Amino acid sequence: MRVFGGRATRALTEDICAHLGVEPGRAEIFKFSNDNTFVRIEESVREEEVFVVQTSVPPVDEAFMELLILVDALRRASVKRLTAVLPYYPYVRSDKKDQPRVPITARLVADLLVTAGVDRVVTVDLTADQIQGFFTIPADHLTAQPVLARYFQDKGLLDNAVVVAPDPGAVKRAQRFAQRLGTPVAFVDKRRTSSSGMEVTATTVVGDVSGRRAILFDEEVDRGSSLLEATDLLLRHGASEVYAACTHAVLSGPAVERLSASPIRQLVVTDTVPVPVHKRWDGLTVLSIAPLLAECMRRIHTGRSVSTLFA
Amino acid sequence: MRVFGGRATRALTEDICAHLGVEPGRAEIFKFSNDNTFVRIEESVREEEVFVVQTSVPPVDEAFMELLILVDALRRASVKRLTAVLPYYPYVRSDKKDQPRVPITARLVADLLVTAGVDRVVTVDLTADQIQGFFTIPADHLTAQPVLARYFQDKGLLDNAVVVAPDPGAVKRAQRFAQRLGTPVAFVDKRRTSSSGMEVTATTVVGDVSGRRAILFDEEVDRGSSLLEATDLLLRHGASEVYAACTHAVLSGPAVERLSASPIRQLVVTDTVPVPVHKRWDGLTVLSIAPLLAECMRRIHTGRSVSTLFA
Amino acid sequence: MRVFGGRATRALTEDICAHLGVEPGRAEIFKFSNDNTFVRIEESVREEEVFVVQTSVPPVDEAFMELLILVDALRRASVKRLTAVLPYYPYVRSDKKDQPRVPITARLVADLLVTAGVDRVVTVDLTADQIQGFFTIPADHLTAQPVLARYFQDKGLLDNAVVVAPDPGAVKRAQRFAQRLGTPVAFVDKRRTSSSGMEVTATTVVGDVSGRRAILFDEEVDRGSSLLEATDLLLRHGASEVYAACTHAVLSGPAVERLSASPIRQLVVTDTVPVPVHKRWDGLTVLSIAPLLAECMRRIHTGRSVSTLFA
Amino acid sequence: MRVFGGRATRALTEDICAHLGVEPGRAEIFKFSNDNTFVRIEESVREEEVFVVQTSVPPVDEAFMELLILVDALRRASVKRLTAVLPYYPYVRSDKKDQPRVPITARLVADLLVTAGVDRVVTVDLTADQIQGFFTIPADHLTAQPVLARYFQDKGLLDNAVVVAPDPGAVKRAQRFAQRLGTPVAFVDKRRTSSSGMEVTATTVVGDVSGRRAILFDEEVDRGSSLLEATDLLLRHGASEVYAACTHAVLSGPAVERLSASPIRQLVVTDTVPVPVHKRWDGLTVLSIAPLLAECMRRIHTGRSVSTLFA
Amino acid sequence: MRVFGGRATRALTEDICAHLGVEPGRAEIFKFSNDNTFVRIEESVREEEVFVVQTSVPPVDEAFMELLILVDALRRASVKRLTAVLPYYPYVRSDKKDQPRVPITARLVADLLVTAGVDRVVTVDLTADQIQGFFTIPADHLTAQPVLARYFQDKGLLDNAVVVAPDPGAVKRAQRFAQRLGTPVAFVDKRRTSSSGMEVTATTVVGDVSGRRAILFDEEVDRGSSLLEATDLLLRHGASEVYAACTHAVLSGPAVERLSASPIRQLVVTDTVPVPVHKRWDGLTVLSIAPLLAECMRRIHTGRSVSTLFA
Amino acid sequence: MRVFGGRATRALTEDICAHLGVEPGRAEIFKFSNDNTFVRIEESVREEEVFVVQTSVPPVDEAFMELLILVDALRRASVKRLTAVLPYYPYVRSDKKDQPRVPITARLVADLLVTAGVDRVVTVDLTADQIQGFFTIPADHLTAQPVLARYFQDKGLLDNAVVVAPDPGAVKRAQRFAQRLGTPVAFVDKRRTSSSGMEVTATTVVGDVSGRRAILFDEEVDRGSSLLEATDLLLRHGASEVYAACTHAVLSGPAVERLSASPIRQLVVTDTVPVPVHKRWDGLTVLSIAPLLAECMRRIHTGRSVSTLFA
Repeated sequence: MRVFGGRATRALTEDICAHLGVEPGRAEIFKFSNDNTFVRIEESVREEEVFVVQTSVPPVDEAFMELLILVDALRRASVKRLTAVLPYYPYVRSDKKDQPRVPITARLVADLLVTAGVDRVVTVDLTADQIQGFFTIPADHLTAQPVLARYFQDKGLLDNAVVVAPDPGAVKRAQRFAQRLGTPVAFVDKRRTSSSGMEVTATTVVGDVSGRRAILFDEEVDRGSSLLEATDLLLRHGASEVYAACTHAVLSGPAVERLSASPIRQLVVTDTVPVPVHKRWDGLTVLSIAPLLAECMRRIHTGRSVSTLFA
Repeated sequence: MRVFGGRATRALTEDICAHLGVEPGRAEIFKFSNDNTFVRIEESVREEEVFVVQTSVPPVDEAFMELLILVDALRRASVKRLTAVLPYYPYVRSDKKDQPRVPITARLVADLLVTAGVDRVVTVDLTADQIQGFFTIPADHLTAQPVLARYFQDKGLLDNAVVVAPDPGAVKRAQRFAQRLGTPVAFVDKRRTSSSGMEVTATTVVGDVSGRRAILFDEEVDRGSSLLEATDLLLRHGASEVYAACTHAVLSGPAVERLSASPIRQLVVTDTVPVPVHKRWDGLTVLSIAPLLAECMRRIHTGRSVSTLFA
Repeated sequence: MRVFGGRATRALTEDICAHLGVEPGRAEIFKFSNDNTFVRIEESVREEEVFVVQTSVPPVDEAFMELLILVDALRRASVKRLTAVLPYYPYVRSDKKDQPRVPITARLVADLLVTAGVDRVVTVDLTADQIQGFFTIPADHLTAQPVLARYFQDKGLLDNAVVVAPDPGAVKRAQRFAQRLGTPVAFVDKRRTSSSGMEVTATTVVGDVSGRRAILFDEEVDRGSSLLEATDLLLRHGASEVYAACTHAVLSGPAVERLSASPIRQLVVTDTVPVPVHKRWDGLTVLSIAPLLAECMRRIHTGRSVSTLFA
Repeated sequence: MRVFGGRATRALTEDICAHLGVEPGRAEIFKFSNDNTFVRIEESVREEEVFVVQTSVPPVDEAFMELLILVDALRRASVKRLTAVLPYYPYVRSDKKDQPRVPITARLVADLLVTAGVDRVVTVDLTADQIQGFFTIPADHLTAQPVLARYFQDKGLLDNAVVVAPDPGAVKRAQRFAQRLGTPVAFVDKRRTSSSGMEVTATTVVGDVSGRRAILFDEEVDRGSSLLEATDLLLRHGASEVYAACTHAVLSGPAVERLSASPIRQLVVTDTVPVPVHKRWDGLTVLSIAPLLAECMRRIHTGRSVSTLFA
Repeated sequence: MRVFGGRATRALTEDICAHLGVEPGRAEIFKFSNDNTFVRIEESVREEEVFVVQTSVPPVDEAFMELLILVDALRRASVKRLTAVLPYYPYVRSDKKDQPRVPITARLVADLLVTAGVDRVVTVDLTADQIQGFFTIPADHLTAQPVLARYFQDKGLLDNAVVVAPDPGAVKRAQRFAQRLGTPVAFVDKRRTSSSGMEVTATTVVGDVSGRRAILFDEEVDRGSSLLEATDLLLRHGASEVYAACTHAVLSGPAVERLSASPIRQLVVTDTVPVPVHKRWDGLTVLSIAPLLAECMRRIHTGRSVSTLFA
Repeated sequence: MRVFGGRATRALTEDICAHLGVEPGRAEIFKFSNDNTFVRIEESVREEEVFVVQTSVPPVDEAFMELLILVDALRRASVKRLTAVLPYYPYVRSDKKDQPRVPITARLVADLLVTAGVDRVVTVDLTADQIQGFFTIPADHLTAQPVLARYFQDKGLLDNAVVVAPDPGAVKRAQRFAQRLGTPVAFVDKRRTSSSGMEVTATTVVGDVSGRRAILFDEEVDRGSSLLEATDLLLRHGASEVYAACTHAVLSGPAVERLSASPIRQLVVTDTVPVPVHKRWDGLTVLSIAPLLAECMRRIHTGRSVSTLFA
C-alpha cells in the first residue's frame, strides 16, 4: 500500500500516512520555468495498490492536472490498482446545466480522472449525492458530518439550537445535520428579482429562529457571502447567537477578512482544504479529516466494508 | 424527421406528432408468447433523424427494454441521429448511493441507453438536476413548471398562497416554483427515529402556513403518502386549503383511492406519465406536456436553440 | 466466492450453492409500488469473486433488468470479478437480422451486460454457437446434451431410434445429439408458401423414420408447436413412438395443455428454466442442471480448466 | 461517393465502379522490401463518403492488414463515412468456440475493422447469419442465392432436382435455396468416430436422392473435399447427376485439380473471391457479384432502403 | 463556422477571424474567486461546425482546463463537429518515457481532449512528428518553416549560411530547414557526464561553421539556454554571426533578459505563443501564424485538401 | 508464468524460456489450405500470467495476425494478464504522417493489440521514443545498446573511433550510443532534390571522420542502402575503416548480398529479428537479445522494477 500526495495536499497526506503507519510515497514533482508540471515516481510501484491524495485548492487547475499527470506516471509504472482520494472534489459546484450552453465540469472531471487511469475514488461531502453517479468506477463518498457534529456536542452547544441552511439548495443536507444533532431546522430563502433594470436580492428566514442559537450548515464556505448574509438575517430575526459548520474551508477572496470580523461565534471546518496559518483566526476551528480518510483507505486496502464510515 | 413511440407512450406520441404535423413512424412491436419483445421498423429510416418517445410506466422494465430494442433496430437500420425522448425518466429516484451496496440505477439507465445507440436525450423534471451529468451525450432537460404555474395563475389561486415542499429534498425545486408564482415557501421536515425498537416518523412544518392556501409541489406523486401526510399536517397547522402540483403522475398502489378521498382541492399534473380514465377523478387536473416536447423536438431538428424552453 | 441469485432463479441458485457447499449471498431485492426494482447487497463483497445466477423467465425484461441492477450494485460495492451465470440466455432467438430493420437483441443483451459491469459469462445451449462471439469477455458455453443423453441411455431407449430435428435450423445440433447417442438423424422440412393470398405451411420428413422410435431434439421448447407438428408428421410417416429432448423448458402459452395431451411419450428437459409444479405432468421429466453449473463455477473460481465440461 | 479497392480486389472494384458510373479512387498501395504495406491516398477525400472494397484471398492476412491500413489512412484524411465492402469475409468460418481455448477470429476481425475506423460493413453470404451480430455498426448482409438460382432456372435444371447440403451445418441455408428453387432438400450426414486408435469418417445421405439431379449447395467451396465426398455418395445413392452451387470460390490446395476431374457437371460460383484464369475449367461457371454490390452501395449512398436486396 | 478563442489566445483568435471574415464566437469565460473557471456560450451553436483556438501559455494548466471546459460546454450545446486548434501544443516536450516512472503527458493531453469531446485537432510544429500518432481522430500538423524561411530569404541572409541544431534531438528538423534554405547543416553535441560527484556538460560543434553565418533552428525557445550556449560555442568556432529561428516563443524565466543581451543578431519567431510588448526587443522578430491557421480552418470547413499547407 | 511464442519467433522464445527456466507454452498453430491461421492453446491458462513473444518478420502481416489471434484465444481462455513481447515492433517506421493521406500504421498496430486483448507490451529499440506514447497500457521499452556496446568495448575497437548516424533522423540515438562508447559523433546529411525532372540525392558527411574508425549506428538495417552509401562516403572522407551496429537485422532484398561484399568490417546486430543461417556471413555478428528480454519478463512477473534495464 503506497500513498502519494500532490503538492497541494502535502500536510494532509503526511497526517494520513501517520495514521496508517506508512511512509508517504516518494515522488519528485516540480514545474519547469515554462510552467509545465513534471512528475517522477522515485520508487518502484509495480503491482502495488496505490492511493493518490490531492485536494482542489488554488491554483485549482494546476492541482488537478498535477493529479492527472501523477496518475499517468503511476499507471505507466504498472501499479495494480489506483485510488484517487479527493478530499475536496474539483469543480464540485459545476454539477448541473442550470442555464443553456454551460458545462457540467464536475462530470468532466470524473471522466478525465478515469481517462488518466484512476480505478476508484474517495470523496468527502459532495454538494450533491448524485455526483457519485458521475462515476461508474467504485466511488466511496464519505461525510464529515460526524466530525463536525462532535464539536457541537462536546462544547455543549445544542440546547435551544436550530440548524439553518443558508440557501434552499442546502436544506437537504442541513436537515440531515439537524437530525444528527437533534435540533430543528430552518433555512434562508433567497430570491433574485429584476426591478426597473436593477437586480435585487430579497432574503427571508423560513422556520423559527427567534431566541435560538443558530448553527449555519453548508458543505463549503467560499467567499463567505451566504454565511454573512444569513448571519445578519438570523440576528435580525432574533437568533441569540450564530455558529457555522462547513466541511470545506475554501475561504476565497475577502472571506477571511469578513468572516473574522463577523458576529459568527465560531466557524467550524475540516482540513479537506488546507487552511494556512495566515487564514486562521480565533473564531475558526479546524478539525482533522485525516483519521476518517486513513480508516477508509485501510479498509479499501484490506477489503473490508467501508459502509460504517458513511453514517 | 421521424417520430416513433413505444407502446407505453402511444397517445402522447400521437399528440406530439399532431403538434409537429407529422405521422408517427410505423413500427410493429409485440411480445411473443415467451414474453420476448419483438420490434420491426416498417419504413426506411436510412440517414433520417429519428426520435423515439418512451416514458417509464409499469411494467417499467418492459417499457425500458422495448425502448432499447427499438433503438437497436433503428441504429442497425442506419439512422443518422437518434434522440430518446423520456417524458418520465426510468428509475429517476435511484440516483445516488445513500446506503452501502445499492445501485445507482438512474446512471445505469443512462449508460444502457448510450450502449444501445442513443445520440441525445430529452427529459422532463428530473428529481435532481445533476442527473443530466449522468450523460456525456447532449441532454436537454425541460421543466413543466411553466405549464403547472399557468394553471394556478389562470385560476386566480395565488392570493395568500404558500408553496410547500413535502420533504426537505424537494425544497430546492419548490422554492423555484414559489419564485415563479411569487409566493413564500415552506416545507415539511420529516424524521425517522428509532425508539425502543420501533421506528417513528416525526413531521413538522417549517415556515408559515397558517391561514394560507398551501400549494404542495413535488416532481412526482407516486403512492401519494407524502402529499397526504403533508396535507394533514398543513391543515392541522392552520392552512386554509391545500392544492398540489406534480409533473409526473405515477399514482401507484393506493394513490388514486386515497388522494381522491383526501382534502386536497385539486391535484394538478401533466401527462408525462399517461393517466388512464380509471385513474382520474374530479380533483385531478391533467395538463398536456405534448406542446413543450413537440417544440423542443422541432428545434432540435432544425438546429435552433432550445434554451428558451428551459425557463 | 459468493453466489447471488436473482428472484427468477432462487431454487436453482440454492441447488447450485448446495453443490458448492456455500451459502447463497444475502441481497434484498424487491419492487416498489411504482414497479421499480430495488437491490441492496446485505454483506460486504469488497474484493470478492462473485457469481450472479439469473435465468430468463417471464416477466423476461424484469428478470434481466434485475440482473443488470444487481450487477451495478455489486460493481459499485467493489467486487473483484463478476461472473453472470445465465442458464437460459435472454432473447437468445433474436440472434440475427433475418429481415430488414429488426434488432439483434441477443447481441444487445451481451453489450448491456458488459456495460453494467459483468466480467465473464456462463451460458448453456445457446441456439447458435456464434452467440459466444457476441462477447469479447470470456464466455463459457456449456451443453446439457450429456445430461439429456444419459436419460435415454439409462432408460434403454436407443434401439432402433432416430434423432429428429423439428426444423432445418436445428439439424446441426440434432446431429450432434444423434452422434452422441449413436443413432441416425432425420429432420422436418417446413416451408411457408403463399398460394392465392393464403399462406400455407407444408411439412415433410427428410430421412428415414418408419418403424423407428423418434427422439425429437431442440434447444428449447416454447409453445410446443414445432414438437407437436413434428410428432404428428413422424407418426404419419410410420414412427413407432415419439420422445422429445430439449434443454430449455420455456413452455409458454398453450404448451403445457397441448403437450401433456400429445402422443409424445416423454418430454425430457432440464431446469435451466424453472418448471413450477402446475406446469408438470407425467410425460415431463425435469433433470437438474445444477451439478453442471456448480462444477463450472468451482473451476472458474479455482482457475482450473472447464474444457472437459464442454464435451 | 468514392470507391477504393484493395489490391486483392482490383478487378471486382473496377466492375463495381463501372456499374456505378464512377472512377475507382486513386491510391498508391505497395510493399516495401521489408514486406511492410504502404498506402497513400492520391486524391482529397475530406468529408466524402468512401467505400473500400476488399475481399479475403491469399495471402489472407496481407489483404486484411492492407484493408485496415487503407482505412486508417482514409480516416486520418477526414472522410465523412467509411463503409468496408467485404465480398468474402475474412476468417468467416472461425465464428465459434467449438473446442476449448480457440479464438473466435471472425469476431476479432469485426473489432479490428471498427478499431481501424470502419463505420459500416457490407458482406455477402456469411456462413452463419449470427456473424452480423458481431458488429454493432450497421451491417448489410447480402445473399448471392438469387444470382445462383437464376442459373439453374435459366438452364432448365429444376425438373426432378433435389438440393443437397454437403454436411449438417449447411442444411439451414441449403433448405432456403431449395425453397427458392422449389425442390426438395437432403443432406449428407458425416460423423467422425475413433475405432481402435484410428479416426474413421462415416457418411450417409439423409433424404431421397435416387434418380434425381442433385444440386449441392454450400456458402463456399474451399478444398472441395466436402463436395467431392458428397458427389461420390450421391451417385452411389442413385442420383442421376450432380451439380454444385457455392457463393465463394476459395478453391484452395488441390481443389481445382480434383473438382475439374470430378463427375460434377457444373460448379456454379460467383466472383466474391476472384477466380484467375488458371483456376478455371469448363465445368466451372463464374457469375458476377458486382451488380448486387453496386446496387447496395448506391442505395447506401443515396439513403434508400437496401432491404429488397436481401430477398 | 464558428471560431471561439480561449482567454490565452484572444489576439490570435481575432487575427484568425479577421482573415476568415467572421466574428469571434461570443462566450463568457471567467474565474470565480475560488479559482474555478466558468464558461457560458452566448450564442446558439446547435449543429454548427465549431473551432476552438487555445494555445499553451502560463498558467499552462489553467489554459488547458479552460479549453476542456469550453469543449464540454460546446459539446453539450450540440455542436456538429468540434476542432481544437492548438498553435502551441500543451506539454509537447513530455512526449516519451526517457526515464523510469515518468508520465507521457503529451499523450495524456491527447486523450483528455478526446474525452472532453474534440473531434479533430490542428497543431503547429510539434517537437516530434510522432505526436500526431497520439491521436486517432484526424490531426492536421502544420509547419511554420515556410513562414520563418521567407524571412531569411527576403532579408538576403542565405549567402554562406549554415543551419545549426542546438542539440542532437533537433537535427532532423534543422536539416529540413537547411534543405528548404539550401544551406549546409551542423549541430551542437551536448553531453552530461559525472566526474567525481559533479555533473559536467561538455559541448562541441559537429560540422563546419567557421566563417559562416549560423542560423540556429529549433521548434521552440524556452529559457533560451540552448540557444545561448550554442551561440557562444559557434562564435568560438569561428561563426561570423548568429541568427536564430524558432516557431514557438515560450521565452520563460530569464529568457528575454539574456537573449536581448546576447550576440544573436535576430531571433525570428511566430506568435503561436503570444509575445506581449514587455517581452519584445529589437533583436526579436515576431511573424504572424494567423494566415496559415485561417487557411487551414477554411479548408477544413469547406472540405478541401489541406495537404498543400504541409509543405 | 507462461510464455507462448508465435511461429515467427520459435527459436528466440526457446532461448528466453531457457533463461527463465520454464517450458514454452504448448499451442498448436497452423494454416489451413485457405491460408487462414488457426490457433489452439493446448494447456489450461485460466488465471495465469501469460507472455506472448512475436517479432515482425516476413510475411509480416501473417506474423502480426497470428499474434492477434493467439491473444484472442488466450483472452477467451481467461488468462489473468497478457503481455505481448515484440522484439521488433511491426510497422515501426510508419510512425508519422509525413505526407498527406498516409496512415500511421505503428499507432494502428498499438490499437489493434489492445483491441485483441493485450494488457501490456515490451518492445526493443523503437525508431522513435514517442511510439511508447501510442499506448496507454504499460509499455516497457528496452534498448539493446548495452549489448551492442559491449561488443566494441570487448574487441577494443574504441580508440580513435567515431559513431556515425547514416541519416539526420538517426542522429539522436547515434549520439546516445557515442556517449555510451565515449566517442565523438558525426552524421550523413542526405538530400533529395529535383533537377530538370530528375530526382538527385546528394550526400555529405557532417562532422570529422578522417583517419578514424567509423561505427555506423542505426536502429535497424533493412535493405542496407543507407549503410552502404554511408560506408562509401565515409571511406571517401578518409575514415580508416567502417563498422556498423544495428539492433534489428531486417536484411531484406539484396541486403545480404550487398553487405557481405561491402568494405564494412563487421556488422553487429541482435536476434530481435531471426537471422537464418543462409543470411549469415563472416562479417556479421549476431548477439542474443534473449537474456535482456528474459530478465525483463521475470521482473514483470515478480513485480520488481525493470527500470535498471533501460539504462
